[in-house]
Amino acid sequence: MVDLDSDEWNLKAVAQQAQRSAVLLGQLKAGVKNQALRAMAKALRSDQSEVLEANTIDLETGRQDGLSDALLDRLKLTPQRIEAMAVALEQIAALKDPIGEVAAGWKHPDGMEIRRVRVPLGVIGIIYEARPNVTCDAIGLCLKSGNGVLLKGGREAENSNQAITRILQEAAYSSGIPQGCIQQLPGTDRAIVDALIRLDQLALLIPRGGSGLIDYVVRNATVPVLETGVGNCHIYIERSADVEMARRIVLNAKVQRPSVCNAAEKLLIHRDAVLTHLELVLTSLRDQGVEIRGCPRTIAFDPRVKPALEEDWGKEYLDKIIAVKIVDSTREAIDWINHYGSRHSEAIVTDNYHEAVQFTDGVDAAAVYVNASTRFTDGGEFGFGAEIGISTQKLHARGPVGLSELTTIKYIVTGSGQTRS
Amino acid sequence: MVDLDSDEWNLKAVAQQAQRSAVLLGQLKAGVKNQALRAMAKALRSDQSEVLEANTIDLETGRQDGLSDALLDRLKLTPQRIEAMAVALEQIAALKDPIGEVAAGWKHPDGMEIRRVRVPLGVIGIIYEARPNVTCDAIGLCLKSGNGVLLKGGREAENSNQAITRILQEAAYSSGIPQGCIQQLPGTDRAIVDALIRLDQLALLIPRGGSGLIDYVVRNATVPVLETGVGNCHIYIERSADVEMARRIVLNAKVQRPSVCNAAEKLLIHRDAVLTHLELVLTSLRDQGVEIRGCPRTIAFDPRVKPALEEDWGKEYLDKIIAVKIVDSTREAIDWINHYGSRHSEAIVTDNYHEAVQFTDGVDAAAVYVNASTRFTDGGEFGFGAEIGISTQKLHARGPVGLSELTTIKYIVTGSGQTRS
Repeated sequence: MVDLDSDEWNLKAVAQQAQRSAVLLGQLKAGVKNQALRAMAKALRSDQSEVLEANTIDLETGRQDGLSDALLDRLKLTPQRIEAMAVALEQIAALKDPIGEVAAGWKHPDGMEIRRVRVPLGVIGIIYEARPNVTCDAIGLCLKSGNGVLLKGGREAENSNQAITRILQEAAYSSGIPQGCIQQLPGTDRAIVDALIRLDQLALLIPRGGSGLIDYVVRNATVPVLETGVGNCHIYIERSADVEMARRIVLNAKVQRPSVCNAAEKLLIHRDAVLTHLELVLTSLRDQGVEIRGCPRTIAFDPRVKPALEEDWGKEYLDKIIAVKIVDSTREAIDWINHYGSRHSEAIVTDNYHEAVQFTDGVDAAAVYVNASTRFTDGGEFGFGAEIGISTQKLHARGPVGLSELTTIKYIVTGSGQTRS
Repeated sequence: MVDLDSDEWNLKAVAQQAQRSAVLLGQLKAGVKNQALRAMAKALRSDQSEVLEANTIDLETGRQDGLSDALLDRLKLTPQRIEAMAVALEQIAALKDPIGEVAAGWKHPDGMEIRRVRVPLGVIGIIYEARPNVTCDAIGLCLKSGNGVLLKGGREAENSNQAITRILQEAAYSSGIPQGCIQQLPGTDRAIVDALIRLDQLALLIPRGGSGLIDYVVRNATVPVLETGVGNCHIYIERSADVEMARRIVLNAKVQRPSVCNAAEKLLIHRDAVLTHLELVLTSLRDQGVEIRGCPRTIAFDPRVKPALEEDWGKEYLDKIIAVKIVDSTREAIDWINHYGSRHSEAIVTDNYHEAVQFTDGVDAAAVYVNASTRFTDGGEFGFGAEIGISTQKLHARGPVGLSELTTIKYIVTGSGQTRS
């Protein structure tokens, strides 16, 4: 347990213990880890009243502190949500173990065998905000990938997170997972965050949350950071786009779940598609209660559109708002996206092969779509089984971060006395 | 050209130009890049007198400044060394282009095709020290991998580096490589280094040089850094080791080229192998002029051995010095290496299967060897064709950094109107 009065010193001791335990965890057989994950799911189900009680305290405190309804909803746990967490752990248990995978192997001309083998990173730090289910997902993914984990959840969910962690720790440790691999850090948020971003024992730090938190961590961390999540995603309707397809994709990307990072925030449309496509698309968006902002040409087309300010174009609304920009060419759309986008997920709707290739070649983002919704950028949808976030950086991992992205490799070279000449 | 009086401001402009040009470079066909690389090799040969003259100035300045003979030798260029640089460019031209490789591809259950495609990183910064051939290798590797490059070579080699860069730039740009992709930064070392480590335009910064430079960059950079090079490598002679094989491997790893990062710096030996193996090994090392330091038990065995201080065990000598430690078990050897090693290259010599597996499983390093010299950790030896260094970090790239490690991926998802339900 971290002493609130002396975060950093104790954090170091906790981290060192996690590091020692992670070395042992990294060498456990897959069967032991999977058995532990299933035991953890079982414990979560049988001890759910403990989690619900802790969650009730968080919800009451949240209401007193004036949290918004949206935040309270994210925070709230129900038997259904706890069941979903347990099922997620069982799904992680069923995934192929990434550790020990021989990612490549070949023979050196002198006869040594060179193997590129997947191994754990070590200890991973995760800083996250409101939703308590992240606690469970993160513990499950780190355990399966052989990594120790130091969690720092949001203060609003502190009781819920501590209860979930306690139950999972107990089930894990009594199933043979080394003591100390799983740690939930309490304490004042900023002090712990400031200690984590400089904690030598961390192989990787993953901030999950708003852009304020992520920017702060990226700017100030001395440990390696995996930047996740901010998605200012665009749908570009090219002039050859099928009207109904364009309408369905924009609608799906904007309103199916507006609060997530792969939701669309901006609509770009070729000037030649305005008369044919735009009215239908805007009407559908309005029918779903979406507020529409736009560039001057969009407003000239539809005076009910509100003006988009310069700051709108870079913004992730995470809400039922979209900003519309009319462009003169696919080239302009690509340049616009590369300038204002967050390199997350970008889509073109087109029936023209050349325009599609120009777009996928030219747009610099983790995922580039032709005629499909940006909402598919997701570890589950990509077939990874689970994810800890979507990386918008280029190093180490880009796109959904699954088990494989939580590992590194080592080369094992076996010979019979070879020396270099 | 960077103005010495105002490094940072101009550096930003140079970097922005490199970034714009790198976007175009990233989309060039492999044939254009390969043709440029061959033209660059040709130019280097035909303009070699220009390089040799510049190098003479650097050598004279170096002598006046009292550089050591070893440093002067690193700095010195000859027609043979220039020819080797030209050949290296031609070899890079002959390598498979990493860009556009479909690293993986599959179908989403809804029918979209998901492809994981290799793309360039953007602009790479490289800070390096004495050897001017790094200029040529770095430019070649970055060009082939579609990345812009900002080079900051050592002050001692400034004239040589500028001459090489000028020749390569001219040949590249007149072969269709976008102007501004290749930049050599002059100026006072620390000021440019301090600007580079915070330069937003850099997708990646690679410091190559002594541990002082690397530590400084890792500690202070806000841009992503690839840590390369420091190698405090161990050879562990297990008790079942073949005596002659142990002798040959230790000798090769220590003396074949003592100044490189994959040379052995430490010898660990099982207590039961001391009487049978150690004398022969130490005699062979002494015959090659190697200074031997050791733990108290080693000195008890051979009083001519000098005492190794605590600081010896973590040190990269890069010289004809080795420190010897007698251990009681393979477990102790593993723990010792994980504590004092630099996670570069580590080897066991053994004839016992179980001990070999324990060692490769337990040692945390980029490359772990059984019965082979640590000297093989090298992009060329691993079959990558060329390398920009050996990564000792776990994120993004571990071990030799070849063309593939200088890229990232993007997901291209092509559908027919799919939306998420």
